[in-house]
Amino acid sequence: MERLDALARHSDEPGKLTRLYLSAAHKTAAEELAGWMREAGLTVSIDALGTVVGRYESAIPGAPALLFGSHIDTVRDAGRYDGALGVIAGLVAVEELAKRHEKFPFAIEVVAFGDEEGVRFPTTLTSSRALAGNFDPAVLDACDAEGVSLRKALIAFGCDPAAIASVAKSREQVLAYVEVHIEQGPVLESSNLPVGVVTAINGVRRLTVAVTGEAGHAGTVPMRLRRDALAAAAEMVLAVERIANSLSNIMATIGRMEVFPCAVNVIPGSVQFTIDVRSPDDMHRDAATEEITRSIRKIAADRRVELSISTTHEAPATACSPVMIDALSRAIKNLGYATRLLPSGAGHDAMAIAKLCPVGMLFVRCAGGISHNPKEAISLQDADICVRILLEFLCNFKPA
Amino acid sequence: MERLDALARHSDEPGKLTRLYLSAAHKTAAEELAGWMREAGLTVSIDALGTVVGRYESAIPGAPALLFGSHIDTVRDAGRYDGALGVIAGLVAVEELAKRHEKFPFAIEVVAFGDEEGVRFPTTLTSSRALAGNFDPAVLDACDAEGVSLRKALIAFGCDPAAIASVAKSREQVLAYVEVHIEQGPVLESSNLPVGVVTAINGVRRLTVAVTGEAGHAGTVPMRLRRDALAAAAEMVLAVERIANSLSNIMATIGRMEVFPCAVNVIPGSVQFTIDVRSPDDMHRDAATEEITRSIRKIAADRRVELSISTTHEAPATACSPVMIDALSRAIKNLGYATRLLPSGAGHDAMAIAKLCPVGMLFVRCAGGISHNPKEAISLQDADICVRILLEFLCNFKPA
Repeated sequence: MERLDALARHSDEPGKLTRLYLSAAHKTAAEELAGWMREAGLTVSIDALGTVVGRYESAIPGAPALLFGSHIDTVRDAGRYDGALGVIAGLVAVEELAKRHEKFPFAIEVVAFGDEEGVRFPTTLTSSRALAGNFDPAVLDACDAEGVSLRKALIAFGCDPAAIASVAKSREQVLAYVEVHIEQGPVLESSNLPVGVVTAINGVRRLTVAVTGEAGHAGTVPMRLRRDALAAAAEMVLAVERIANSLSNIMATIGRMEVFPCAVNVIPGSVQFTIDVRSPDDMHRDAATEEITRSIRKIAADRRVELSISTTHEAPATACSPVMIDALSRAIKNLGYATRLLPSGAGHDAMAIAKLCPVGMLFVRCAGGISHNPKEAISLQDADICVRILLEFLCNFKPA
Repeated sequence: MERLDALARHSDEPGKLTRLYLSAAHKTAAEELAGWMREAGLTVSIDALGTVVGRYESAIPGAPALLFGSHIDTVRDAGRYDGALGVIAGLVAVEELAKRHEKFPFAIEVVAFGDEEGVRFPTTLTSSRALAGNFDPAVLDACDAEGVSLRKALIAFGCDPAAIASVAKSREQVLAYVEVHIEQGPVLESSNLPVGVVTAINGVRRLTVAVTGEAGHAGTVPMRLRRDALAAAAEMVLAVERIANSLSNIMATIGRMEVFPCAVNVIPGSVQFTIDVRSPDDMHRDAATEEITRSIRKIAADRRVELSISTTHEAPATACSPVMIDALSRAIKNLGYATRLLPSGAGHDAMAIAKLCPVGMLFVRCAGGISHNPKEAISLQDADICVRILLEFLCNFKPA
């Protein structure tokens, strides 16, 4: 917890925690982290994307590695646990092993990526994608708000863009990737559990729906002659909620809604709203989207309003490895805690690393489900449990 | 219809019809109207508020008068029938009587008020209120957007503000007031009827409702743990609609709705919306408002969201005289048309005159229920029917 507090002092903005990719604060945070890793006996390097990699050597030198990692960049005015917890938890676990002079037939590498939040550049997961061998050289020309390209920012950070290809790990070098992360949601807290195992990182589909009825005077058009776009949209909101409630593994949210002309004495003529549908399973998500679409089309027909539905965004789900889910679950059980499986609603570096090797994620309970906010909080006890679970997991981990 | 077209040529803005109270266009329109009245044999005056009054004398000189009237001011970019139809219909009916040399034991006065739309000054019904003896001298200091006071505008129009008190009619001078007006709604058109009789001018109560739930990440908060302010508001919208549908004489409209923070991936934390409840009967309106309030409080409690409800506006209903409703209905029936009673959703000069004498209103079907719009339209046939109804009404009218 002290290390997490220390890391939070590296900020680009006074009075709050803002640590953008390749910024001065990122540089000093990476250096302090590298120092802690060296003290723990790890071999440290900062790769061509700024990722800090600390290697705890195997009993068999040069053996493939199990990766523990997450990111050390933050959003603006961030909390101190999102990302940093996964790096520090991995480091503390390895420190403990080093103290015990305990070695495994595999190496352990603690990795701290720098570009997960995607705040500075119009790109994200750059550093984890590079590690997985999926770096897109085109993003080197992407610029931040000040017009600084990713290429220039890398050079200023001390990285060599020409060396990016060499960052990629081969499948032979890596056994698996484990990411510890705060849950960023209220499930564990409401279940009274310190940790949970992630089944998959949700895929998402976003729709924009436009409902067109007929505007009219609130005092002269009788109820039965109305084609009220807001009343139709309200029925659709409840249909979306009902469908999401009736299906397992589905979240559906209507986050935006705008009413036109939006005057106290005018029957709404049109309404536009968004639907965000998420699931750890793309087939479930697609089936839910289809049911939602069918249902709102029926409502529109019944209410004689026109409807237009368009898909504005789509991203597939990333499944965690069943072997890793099982191994993390067993570690939790061995320590005497109930095992809770849950999907991740937000994206993580694990999405990029899943292209390279099996990934597993351990979620840690956070207060009120709050994240991306200075109020982000975890308990010392939960942090302790989380490191103990990583150690228990390590002791039982058998490379495939 | 030709006269209505001619009147529409008096406009303050080229290419469209805009005739504001006491403007140059109002002045020339009032003068042309006064000319038509004189040609028809009426005694014409323009009173201290700019109201054109044409008197068709009784068989008994000085007898009390039945008033036919409406207004000749318009909204900006107006249609040509709102207001003007009531004045011209009255004039044409009296012209016909004059042609026939038909006199009654009562006089008939055709009145053309100038301030019904309330567009120029922050006041409305000034001229009809003055006629009813309810003029508020404080409004003389009200100014238009150019800083011209009502007092100055009256003087520029040729009126004497000192003579305003003398505009007031006594109860002995006036038998009743009949206002013909386009419906401004779709009821008559959808019922396939040329005219209808107004039962009352709706009262209105407006509420502002604020729903506060809990904002959250669309991907991390499971459905069962949400307190979605928009889902709660949607249920409230449908409850308001259901209650209004289940009650006679009630219109309820949710015209404004705003969602916060209104982002595609954030569960809405709060929603604010308005409810406009109208009824020709204040007790019905209050009972409906109470039922709505009870229902949305229950929804808020069930969904564990906070609620605040405040009343932002209230105006009582103005009942039309049962005697006048009956007399107009009989005239319609005598001409072979079905009688349709309906409330008026919009306000009219009849609201002010109701303080002086019994009022009746005859609504004329308008195309698509459209008003306050250049597309405003009535048919020649309906205009003809409307004047015939006024004549039939006059022949049977017995002063109480």
